[in-house]
Amino acid sequence: MLLYLLDLFGVAVFAVSGAIVAARKRFDLLGIAVIATVTAIGGGTIRDVLLNRHPVFWIKDPAYLAVILGAATLTVVYMVFRKPPQVWLLIADALGLALFTISGAQVAEDQHLPGVIVVVMGTITGSAGGLLRDVLGAEVPLVLRQTDLYATAAIAGATTYLVLQAVGVDRTPAALTGMVTVVGLRLAAIFWKLRLPVVFAPDDEVRKPDPPS
Amino acid sequence: MLLYLLDLFGVAVFAVSGAIVAARKRFDLLGIAVIATVTAIGGGTIRDVLLNRHPVFWIKDPAYLAVILGAATLTVVYMVFRKPPQVWLLIADALGLALFTISGAQVAEDQHLPGVIVVVMGTITGSAGGLLRDVLGAEVPLVLRQTDLYATAAIAGATTYLVLQAVGVDRTPAALTGMVTVVGLRLAAIFWKLRLPVVFAPDDEVRKPDPPS
Amino acid sequence: MLLYLLDLFGVAVFAVSGAIVAARKRFDLLGIAVIATVTAIGGGTIRDVLLNRHPVFWIKDPAYLAVILGAATLTVVYMVFRKPPQVWLLIADALGLALFTISGAQVAEDQHLPGVIVVVMGTITGSAGGLLRDVLGAEVPLVLRQTDLYATAAIAGATTYLVLQAVGVDRTPAALTGMVTVVGLRLAAIFWKLRLPVVFAPDDEVRKPDPPS
Repeated sequence: MLLYLLDLFGVAVFAVSGAIVAARKRFDLLGIAVIATVTAIGGGTIRDVLLNRHPVFWIKDPAYLAVILGAATLTVVYMVFRKPPQVWLLIADALGLALFTISGAQVAEDQHLPGVIVVVMGTITGSAGGLLRDVLGAEVPLVLRQTDLYATAAIAGATTYLVLQAVGVDRTPAALTGMVTVVGLRLAAIFWKLRLPVVFAPDDEVRKPDPPS
Repeated sequence: MLLYLLDLFGVAVFAVSGAIVAARKRFDLLGIAVIATVTAIGGGTIRDVLLNRHPVFWIKDPAYLAVILGAATLTVVYMVFRKPPQVWLLIADALGLALFTISGAQVAEDQHLPGVIVVVMGTITGSAGGLLRDVLGAEVPLVLRQTDLYATAAIAGATTYLVLQAVGVDRTPAALTGMVTVVGLRLAAIFWKLRLPVVFAPDDEVRKPDPPS
Repeated sequence: MLLYLLDLFGVAVFAVSGAIVAARKRFDLLGIAVIATVTAIGGGTIRDVLLNRHPVFWIKDPAYLAVILGAATLTVVYMVFRKPPQVWLLIADALGLALFTISGAQVAEDQHLPGVIVVVMGTITGSAGGLLRDVLGAEVPLVLRQTDLYATAAIAGATTYLVLQAVGVDRTPAALTGMVTVVGLRLAAIFWKLRLPVVFAPDDEVRKPDPPS
């Protein structure tokens, strides 16, 4: 029950982030609803299709779609009056990433898949929604750029979760520690500018500076 | 039988629209065939995969691929000689959207899924092909922009179809009315500039005017 | 056993090409790993999902992911010191395309699907990974542009493979000839500038010259 509520909370948070991005791109009201939905359910949908889990979670339980529409509507109403508070959004987004990464990893674990697949499924569940959001907005996905540590945080959190269990920690504290790892890395990336190294291909193409984006 | 012919007609129309877009992007002949195919079968394929309907419709019945290749070939031959008639294309495209939206909704209905899922599946079936076409062309999907009412028309049409049935209308007239709703909204958007509201995020980013596109 | 090794070789080659593209886009280390993985397994994953083959090949056998990570790591280490040899990469990439196209066609053939579906599945298996790589990098997919003959080579190779079998050639020599066709067309496109025709839509839009890209 708690897990289900946390899952709905993660869906709501991602719907808010999708709605804000779509509004900035000047999509219309239903375009905003579409982007909010894709951001919120994209990762879990790809996970379910890859693992052959049918019906897909939001087809089985339409409460997810109701939560998304509610969250997107509130976001739109809020944005009519005020600028969305960027910092709180980033923190909520980090929580959503953490929740989805660990719940995605647990789904793969319950199917007795090898550890590397568990990490991959957690990462897909956590980050594919944001990736689809950026692709639909025709942007280079933030998920993959150096400024974000997005996929990185998911991979690290899912790995932490698995390693702790392997050394004998129970599932619940391992899951909580995994989530804290995700949130911690994301916030460190955002507030203390923690970065992974970038490799420059020694090429003409990279000698041109990127335009600031 | 009539439904099947209408379905093939929808596939042909979307193949034409994909071929025109691909030719404008200067894709080569097989690139045009690929884009025409993705546009025509993308929505139905995603619907079938999400609903676990196997084999996917065009794998089960290769007539769809034959129709797509025929339509794309005729389009290419036509474009060598003349500018494609934009208005007729838009009308045909609205018809294709209407056909696919209602047939997608009916597929979900036949699986006894809740109403909101029926609307979502109709919308996906109708509009995902055009969305994939735009993503492959690295454009912000027209489906989502305010100038289009594309997803909006699909959502409204599928909802009309469901509401009419809920108040006792038979399936066939409900389907026809749903299709008329889709076509009407699309053409109103195109010819009378009907628009859904756009929310401006109160942000620096949106103070810059969009380049005309 | 040989086929399996060839398959792993194809995965490694595509991982290298994904890693180079991602490094040029200045993705961070895990972004490079993500793009390398998507490039290497994207085509086969879409094939497996469309054909309802579960578990998907890399979920069933994590050796694929290990090979990808190894290949991406070696690529990154190499790029720190030297410019990657473009010519050898293109040749290896053509080999990977050839291997994946024919192995994808064989999977569809083993399911007794009609010839056109076999060709489509070979083409998807061979080229969808590179297409996803370009979409994630927010580029117009090279796969579809005239400078590449990428999908074209896959379609031609898979067709050759089928036609040879239809006229009585055994499966193995037909497969080898199909692969040679793919590699030959790709290299002819690269080194002798072989091109398919481009159709110009007789439109204002195409009178503007494309920016060099």
